[in-house]
Amino acid sequence: MSTLSVAALTELAVSVLVASGVAARDARTCAVCLVEGDLRGQRAHGLSRLPAYVRRIDAGGLDPSASPRVVRHSAVSALIDGGNGLGPVVMSMATETAIVKAKESGMAWVGAFRSNHAGAGGVYVQRVVDAGLIGIFGAVANSNQLAPWGGVEALLGPNPIAIGIPAGDEPSVILDMATTTVSFGTVRQRAASGQPLPEGWLMDRDGAPVTDPRSLTGATLVPIGGYKGYGLSLAIAALAGTLNGARWGSDLVDHYEDQVTPTNTGQFIFALDPGLFRDRPAFERDLDVRLREIRASRPMKSVDRVLIPGERSADRRSRTLGEGIEIADQLLNELRQLARPKSVEDPRSHPGRLIQ
Amino acid sequence: MSTLSVAALTELAVSVLVASGVAARDARTCAVCLVEGDLRGQRAHGLSRLPAYVRRIDAGGLDPSASPRVVRHSAVSALIDGGNGLGPVVMSMATETAIVKAKESGMAWVGAFRSNHAGAGGVYVQRVVDAGLIGIFGAVANSNQLAPWGGVEALLGPNPIAIGIPAGDEPSVILDMATTTVSFGTVRQRAASGQPLPEGWLMDRDGAPVTDPRSLTGATLVPIGGYKGYGLSLAIAALAGTLNGARWGSDLVDHYEDQVTPTNTGQFIFALDPGLFRDRPAFERDLDVRLREIRASRPMKSVDRVLIPGERSADRRSRTLGEGIEIADQLLNELRQLARPKSVEDPRSHPGRLIQ
Repeated sequence: MSTLSVAALTELAVSVLVASGVAARDARTCAVCLVEGDLRGQRAHGLSRLPAYVRRIDAGGLDPSASPRVVRHSAVSALIDGGNGLGPVVMSMATETAIVKAKESGMAWVGAFRSNHAGAGGVYVQRVVDAGLIGIFGAVANSNQLAPWGGVEALLGPNPIAIGIPAGDEPSVILDMATTTVSFGTVRQRAASGQPLPEGWLMDRDGAPVTDPRSLTGATLVPIGGYKGYGLSLAIAALAGTLNGARWGSDLVDHYEDQVTPTNTGQFIFALDPGLFRDRPAFERDLDVRLREIRASRPMKSVDRVLIPGERSADRRSRTLGEGIEIADQLLNELRQLARPKSVEDPRSHPGRLIQ
Repeated sequence: MSTLSVAALTELAVSVLVASGVAARDARTCAVCLVEGDLRGQRAHGLSRLPAYVRRIDAGGLDPSASPRVVRHSAVSALIDGGNGLGPVVMSMATETAIVKAKESGMAWVGAFRSNHAGAGGVYVQRVVDAGLIGIFGAVANSNQLAPWGGVEALLGPNPIAIGIPAGDEPSVILDMATTTVSFGTVRQRAASGQPLPEGWLMDRDGAPVTDPRSLTGATLVPIGGYKGYGLSLAIAALAGTLNGARWGSDLVDHYEDQVTPTNTGQFIFALDPGLFRDRPAFERDLDVRLREIRASRPMKSVDRVLIPGERSADRRSRTLGEGIEIADQLLNELRQLARPKSVEDPRSHPGRLIQ
C-alpha cells in the first residue's frame, strides 16, 4: 500500500481520464467524485473503478466527449440526457441542477438517462446537504444480482438509495445503502478467503442459504427484509429507470460483461428545502436533540458507541483528508500506466485493458 | 367469524365514531380508511384499530371534533396541523392536498403534525396512484420497538414507508412496509401459539437472536438489513417527525401505554407527476413491460407465481369487495356496543374501554 495526498490522487485520476479523451473539466468533476468515494471509505465506488471506466471508453461503450444536457424541465424538475458520458459528470450536473431549483422552488427532482455508473450516491446527497437541503438519490445498479422475491431469475440489481438530512451541530444523516444485505463484491472477497459465507447473504433457487464459498454460480443476493428489499429495489428501478427512460430488468446491460453497448443507466436526485415546513434553526435544533440522544444511547457490550448513518464515513473523511489516502500498489501502478498519453502507451503494460 | 358487506361495516364504523363525538363527514373519512385496510388484508390497520381510537377519544387523548388545517404552504408543499384529531382524517386531507398541488405544480410534499395513527400507508399512496401520480408515504410509528444499530435502547419505531407507482395494464406497484423484519403484532401472534420465533425477528441486548416465545421482555425488533433498516427508520423519523415538528425518540408517546397525552404523530405524503419526465403512455408501457417480465418469471418450486408488491392486496381487495369482509365475532360485538349512543351505554358491555 502507498499513501498519497488527496490532491495527488485527484491529479492522477484527472490525467488518466484526459489521456482517455475526456475534457479537462469533466475529468476533474469525475476524479473528485471517485476520490470522494475513497475518502468516505466506500472503496468499491472510488478510484478502483477508474480502470473499468477507461476500459469502457477504449472499447467504445462510453463517450468521453459527451456533454449531458437538459431535455425536459419545469420549475421543480429536469430530465438529463447523459449522452452516454461519464456517470459522475452526469450526476454532478443533476445534483447542481436539483440544488439550484430547490433553492428557488422549494424542491426539485432531477432524473438522468443515458448515464453510466456514477459512484457512491452518498457523494451526491452530501452536496445537497452541504447546500442546506434534504437529498434523496436512487440508481439502477449496473448488474442484475437478485431475483424478485419468490422467483429465481436475477432480474434486479441491488439498486441503491441514499438519503441525506442536514443537522445543526451533530453530524448530518447520510444513509447510503444497497437494497441487498451485502454486495457481490463483499461476497467475492469473503469467498476468496475460503471462509464459509454467513447465512442471509446469498440464496439458491429454492431460497435456501448458500454458504459454500465455492458454490456461487447461480446464487442470487438476498434482498434486505426479503420481499421488502425486493419491493424497494423494484420501486427504485421504476423511479430511476422507467421514469427516465433508462434500462433495467432483462433489458439491462451488465457493465462487467459488456463493455461496448451503451448502458443507458438511470439515476435520480431529489432536493427538498426543510424551510418549507420548519424554520431552519428549529429544524436543526430538534434534529440535533434526537441525534444526540441516539449517539449517547447505551451501546451493546461489543460496541464502542452508537453511530448515526454516515458518521463513520464523515470521521474517516476528516482523518483521511489530513493523512492522505491509502491505495494498493497494483492499482496505483495501473493508474500511472493509464495516465500516460495514448501515443506512447504500451498495451502490454496494463493487461486489464482491452487492446484497440 | 362473520362476513359483512363493505357497506355494512363502513356504516358500523361510522356509527361507532359518531357515537364518540366525531362529525359525520370525518367519521366516514376515517371509516373508509380503516375498511380499506381490511379490504387489502392489512388487518392490523383495519377496523381492529377502532376500539383503540375510541378508547383514546374517551380518555381525552384525541380530539374527535378537531379539524386539520394548513398552517404553512407553497405551490409544492403544505404543512398540516392535525389538531390532535383522527389520523385518517388528517392524512386523507394531506393526500388530497398533495394530489391537487402535484397536478398543478408537478409534485408536492405534504407533512402533518399533531396527527394520530392513520392506518396503512398503502391506502394513501393508492389514492395518489389512482390520480395517475407516483406517491411516497412515511410515518413515525406510535411505539418504540427497535434500537439504533449497535445500541440497546428502543429509541425508534418500525417507521413505515409506502411507495406507489402507477402502471398501465399491469397491477400498479404498491409497496407498503415497516423497516423491521416483522411487526410486534406478528411476534405476539407467534408467541401466543407457543412456537419458537424464527431467528431474525427479535434480538436481545447483545444482538443475539431471541427465539424463546416466553422471553419477549427487553427484546427489540430486528431492522431489515441491520444498520440499513436502522438508517431507514431514522431517516423516516426525521422526514415525518422532525420536519413537521412531530415527536419521536424518547419524546414519543406510546399509544399503547398512554391514552391521554396527545401523540403529536408525524406523517408525510409526496406526490410526483411522471409526466414531468416521460409522456404518460410511454411511461406506463415501459413499466408494464418490466412488470410483466417479473410476473412471468420463473418462481421457486415452492411458490405459485412471482408477485408485484401490492398485487396480493389488490387481488384480495377485488375478491373481498364482492364476497364481503370477514370479521371476528368478538370485534364485531365490541363495535356494535361502541356504536350505541352514549346515553344508553353500559360500561360493563365493553370491558376494553376506559370508564369515564
